[in-house]
Amino acid sequence: MSNLSYKMIIFGGTGDLTKRKLIPAIHELGKGKYLPKEFKVIGIGRRGINQEEYSNMLYKGITEYTNIETNPKLWNEISKKIYYLKMDFTKPSEYKRLYEYLLEDNKKEKISSNLMFYLAVSPEYFGGIVNNLKENNIIDEDNQWNRMVIEKPFGKNFKSAKKLNNEISKVFKENQIFRIDHYLGKEMIQNITMLRFENSIFEPIWNNKHIENIQIIVSEKQGIGLRGEYYDNTGALKDMIQSHLLQILAVTTMEYPKNFHMNSIRNAKAKLLEDLVFYTDDNNKENIIFGQYEGYNDEERISQHSNRETFVAMKVFIKNKRWQGVPIYLMTGKKLKEKLAQVNIEFKRPQNTMYDNSEINSLEINKTPKNNVLEIMIQPKEGIGLRINIKKPTVMDEMEVAEMEYCRTCLSGLNTPDAYVKLLLDVIEGDSTRFTRWDELSNSWKFIDSINEDLIKVHKYKPRGLGPEKAYEMISEDNRKWWFLNKWGEHNENI
Amino acid sequence: MSNLSYKMIIFGGTGDLTKRKLIPAIHELGKGKYLPKEFKVIGIGRRGINQEEYSNMLYKGITEYTNIETNPKLWNEISKKIYYLKMDFTKPSEYKRLYEYLLEDNKKEKISSNLMFYLAVSPEYFGGIVNNLKENNIIDEDNQWNRMVIEKPFGKNFKSAKKLNNEISKVFKENQIFRIDHYLGKEMIQNITMLRFENSIFEPIWNNKHIENIQIIVSEKQGIGLRGEYYDNTGALKDMIQSHLLQILAVTTMEYPKNFHMNSIRNAKAKLLEDLVFYTDDNNKENIIFGQYEGYNDEERISQHSNRETFVAMKVFIKNKRWQGVPIYLMTGKKLKEKLAQVNIEFKRPQNTMYDNSEINSLEINKTPKNNVLEIMIQPKEGIGLRINIKKPTVMDEMEVAEMEYCRTCLSGLNTPDAYVKLLLDVIEGDSTRFTRWDELSNSWKFIDSINEDLIKVHKYKPRGLGPEKAYEMISEDNRKWWFLNKWGEHNENI
Repeated sequence: MSNLSYKMIIFGGTGDLTKRKLIPAIHELGKGKYLPKEFKVIGIGRRGINQEEYSNMLYKGITEYTNIETNPKLWNEISKKIYYLKMDFTKPSEYKRLYEYLLEDNKKEKISSNLMFYLAVSPEYFGGIVNNLKENNIIDEDNQWNRMVIEKPFGKNFKSAKKLNNEISKVFKENQIFRIDHYLGKEMIQNITMLRFENSIFEPIWNNKHIENIQIIVSEKQGIGLRGEYYDNTGALKDMIQSHLLQILAVTTMEYPKNFHMNSIRNAKAKLLEDLVFYTDDNNKENIIFGQYEGYNDEERISQHSNRETFVAMKVFIKNKRWQGVPIYLMTGKKLKEKLAQVNIEFKRPQNTMYDNSEINSLEINKTPKNNVLEIMIQPKEGIGLRINIKKPTVMDEMEVAEMEYCRTCLSGLNTPDAYVKLLLDVIEGDSTRFTRWDELSNSWKFIDSINEDLIKVHKYKPRGLGPEKAYEMISEDNRKWWFLNKWGEHNENI
Repeated sequence: MSNLSYKMIIFGGTGDLTKRKLIPAIHELGKGKYLPKEFKVIGIGRRGINQEEYSNMLYKGITEYTNIETNPKLWNEISKKIYYLKMDFTKPSEYKRLYEYLLEDNKKEKISSNLMFYLAVSPEYFGGIVNNLKENNIIDEDNQWNRMVIEKPFGKNFKSAKKLNNEISKVFKENQIFRIDHYLGKEMIQNITMLRFENSIFEPIWNNKHIENIQIIVSEKQGIGLRGEYYDNTGALKDMIQSHLLQILAVTTMEYPKNFHMNSIRNAKAKLLEDLVFYTDDNNKENIIFGQYEGYNDEERISQHSNRETFVAMKVFIKNKRWQGVPIYLMTGKKLKEKLAQVNIEFKRPQNTMYDNSEINSLEINKTPKNNVLEIMIQPKEGIGLRINIKKPTVMDEMEVAEMEYCRTCLSGLNTPDAYVKLLLDVIEGDSTRFTRWDELSNSWKFIDSINEDLIKVHKYKPRGLGPEKAYEMISEDNRKWWFLNKWGEHNENI
């Protein structure tokens, strides 16, 4: 493999994603010696800056936006691999420069190249870029491989996603397309697969016979910030549920894959997403709650009349044998009390408990077992918790809940690699397990399209709070409660 | 119930058990207001001491042998309930004094009595005491109830246990007899029942389909101390295995009881003990390891030639559907490295693991899942641990073991009540769940009797060590290892 060169070409080379995520990830891969020997990043941008200015800008990004360890000497080593190319990617005429740049490189190196195109730009440009790459022979069958990495959003509904996919597919085959959902690169999401399949105690009880309900929450403290235009056209349902939450749901509930190769896992996820029960106009009113934080209409580029949801709580069902009848509650929102992502698996009550129908039940002590809950903490804490019933250490046969916990991020000195580090390495290695395949994407869009948003009332909620009360009424009408509230300290039983 | 008085009559009222365990337990029950209003302890002894001297002796015992919180004022309150009666219980003629003592009390109180007889004396006296109580009309049908509490050892084999039981049964009915195995009063042993039946996640996997093996260990740092005469006649097999370890085994593996009333639970335990696979001369040689610590023969009252075992490691099977084929390893010994009691449930390997037959298996990183282990810590730490496989936080798909833990005794300020506190309250309340019924006892003796001790070689071992190497060879020949070694720090993989 040493006679191959690897080139990562970033469209949007001076953009936020590049500075905050991509270059820091390259830095970490370089530091850990995970990069191939002949590896080069070519950042493309419109600005007239030179190589040194580009390097300084990126270094500033690392020190400003991340807490990864670096120093000028180390950066000097790593930045040798990073180049800047001034080019306006919206102009077809400018692609010739990229072609020549690469051609020259190839001549110098006398070896064939692997090309990774990273589209860190707005999706409206995807079709054009892809087309121009083809037209200008930049994507060349002579290359060892050509891979295309794209960021979400991938479409706004099934129809637009399909149109976008058709444009890209004219040039790239499915196995060359890496659709990033960075949640799939998070350690604890990857861990869900290991947790389920590498521990014999979980799989036998991972079904509707033993599980009562599942809850997935991704909450944010931040508002929409400066992304007003994008956000107001998108909303929480499409920005978060369609991508991150449905992916977490799929990993958590998919069938046992045939094996653990990338396509088997993605087959299992795609099948699961296909099995989501569609909403109808009748049931989406009671099973979906929209919210909007107070002050949203005063944010930059948002109209006073926008009804766009910044919060979603919803109840989802899966129509297969394993999950028949098990409700899956999703919640996501902006400007909430805490930044938090976790999955809670709530198990059923024991069938016969020790104290039912017992004469000593009359004593006023706690003899009712609570449901077992397995908690997968994704962020900010990363770890696993398990709530079990044990005997209270008194002379009475009283019960209490013990919370067993393994908290990885509570161990000192342990730094979890950022999702992009893992995902970029996956692209280099050609492992698409953690990327969204077209059939997964199209199934999730079809499910989202079944929701008639016009019928859903949007409830206002207080910033830094728990979201609209309606979300709590929905779950308490089912005689359940949101488990993550335990972690939010001031759990108010009344809402 | 206020028109009833409760009297606890202790034979051996100046003995070690009374000072170290029984009176401290009464103290705790009194402090916690768990004692009935009219409650009296009558300590019987041969010594000519007065009430005040007796009270001082007992108070000294509490402060010297226990770490329970007390003070002279509190003791003054509690000791009002405690009386001394000089009497030689080996002489039938002296029982008249006890009769008259109680008669006078009853006249004063004008109420009928509940009598609890606590035999804190050597078993050879049990028959005589019981007989004299009957002959002298101390056990009277007019009493609300008469209960008899006896300490182990209850016999030396099935035959002698049966003889002893016959003697007691002439006077007391089975439901009046409370055979103490103080391990059943330990918090974490009581907890095993709750753990199994009050948590829906454990029962579905509590069988030979999911459990690979079970390990029960009770190790001691102490030698035999001054108990040489008793110990040399008994040995670890009968002193520890027959009682404590088999009871822990029964609680851990019994079938789901019909309900949780005391007789249903004891039915389940008795049935389990009946299902233990008997040893034959052929198999006890390889499945039982005896050891004796170096220096045993120099202990007080031990002969230079005694071959008595102070250590046992053995492999037991259960012949029922739930446990067919699952080995249960028991270990107990004196003068070992640590004082420790725990149960380890080792689960099977996952059937299909992610990395079997995978091309990336060739990388030299850890991709082999370890078996899940549920660890029930009985002493000195009390709590529950669970070993699971999770992803190592690196960019590789590497695995590591996470130890989730709930450690009750690690929480500051939490004091678990001593076993005797719970057990004495049980006797007062008439709850025999945590006491050994005759059929349990007889089944455990029949099992122990199936062992031909003469065929078992006794291996010497170093004090403060891990016991004889043979115990480690036995389990490693089965491709397993003793899990508790993880807790002994210097786990030496080679032995």
